[in-house]
Amino acid sequence: MTDFFDVVARQRAHRRFTDAPVDDATVERLLDAAVRAPSAENRQPWEFIVVRDAAIRNALGDLMTRAWDSGGRQWSEPRISEHLLADVESGMHGGFAGAPVMIVAAADLARTTEATVGSSLFPAIQNLLLAASALGLGSALTTIATSFGSELRELLALPDTLRVVAILPIGHPVKQLGPSRRDPAREHAHRNRFGTPWP
Amino acid sequence: MTDFFDVVARQRAHRRFTDAPVDDATVERLLDAAVRAPSAENRQPWEFIVVRDAAIRNALGDLMTRAWDSGGRQWSEPRISEHLLADVESGMHGGFAGAPVMIVAAADLARTTEATVGSSLFPAIQNLLLAASALGLGSALTTIATSFGSELRELLALPDTLRVVAILPIGHPVKQLGPSRRDPAREHAHRNRFGTPWP
Repeated sequence: MTDFFDVVARQRAHRRFTDAPVDDATVERLLDAAVRAPSAENRQPWEFIVVRDAAIRNALGDLMTRAWDSGGRQWSEPRISEHLLADVESGMHGGFAGAPVMIVAAADLARTTEATVGSSLFPAIQNLLLAASALGLGSALTTIATSFGSELRELLALPDTLRVVAILPIGHPVKQLGPSRRDPAREHAHRNRFGTPWP
Repeated sequence: MTDFFDVVARQRAHRRFTDAPVDDATVERLLDAAVRAPSAENRQPWEFIVVRDAAIRNALGDLMTRAWDSGGRQWSEPRISEHLLADVESGMHGGFAGAPVMIVAAADLARTTEATVGSSLFPAIQNLLLAASALGLGSALTTIATSFGSELRELLALPDTLRVVAILPIGHPVKQLGPSRRDPAREHAHRNRFGTPWP
């Protein structure tokens, strides 16, 4: 039994993984958690590609590297700490692709509209990431490679109606991470109208 | 102690609420869970407006009613079951606004880009909804009123950089709901490439 609030407090982004395998039954538990999430009109427009094949994982990793090296790093550099930048850098250069499983999450635009892709996919993705955390696995929410639509389509044999929204490396983390760093909720909460302090 | 996987399995959309109050300490637990979620570059671009004021809740409800009556119902009618349609109808016509608390979730575009609004807000929103479920509360993920940007801005005194992405009614449900209806995960999962069956 894993306490819900403990799982939420423990979720971190992992960017390097060991070679220890993650079996199909475990992946299935992640997918089962994902599909319990809400979606617009309960249309469940998600499709998940579970990538174990090393060549495809490396090709996904190459897209991340290209996106990072051709603009991502430059964008993030002035915005994030040196420590986080180095960690992201290691993920983009082989860390994410080194996970034994990468789950590609896509929206089927035949079952949702452009306007509801985010509200219909990211709750399921968050369920999946939390479930990984509940099972002691490491994971991360990455979106940087989603701009390579046609390359992802070819690599993963995606129908035209599918749009990749995230790539989620799943594995055993190289190191256990401490609690996440967040602003207290009250710094971003308001009562009745913006600017009236909560609580 | 509330088991993570039980909470995930139990989450439902509630559309009618009793008058029983939800105290500030409980709302604070929901917000604390929300801000543990990941966001692009850990920029935490979320702002939450906790609306208790009945006039503002009713105004939010009116926007939902208008959006539903002026196109939402017509769009959904051929797509969802008669039972679900009737339930959504009751939510849009006063059910959602009858919750003692409505939490408006907004993205600050000064702290995120258009492209990362969804991946940075909906994981936090899902944490909040799951936390409500863990505490025995009812909730729902609604986005229908977000199209009324300028009216929401005026009603909630939002700065220009804020964009509302969801409105979450929170309260005690009129009735306990059974398990959610979802396709099995395997119907939407693939191995390595789309179309190769999982598992």
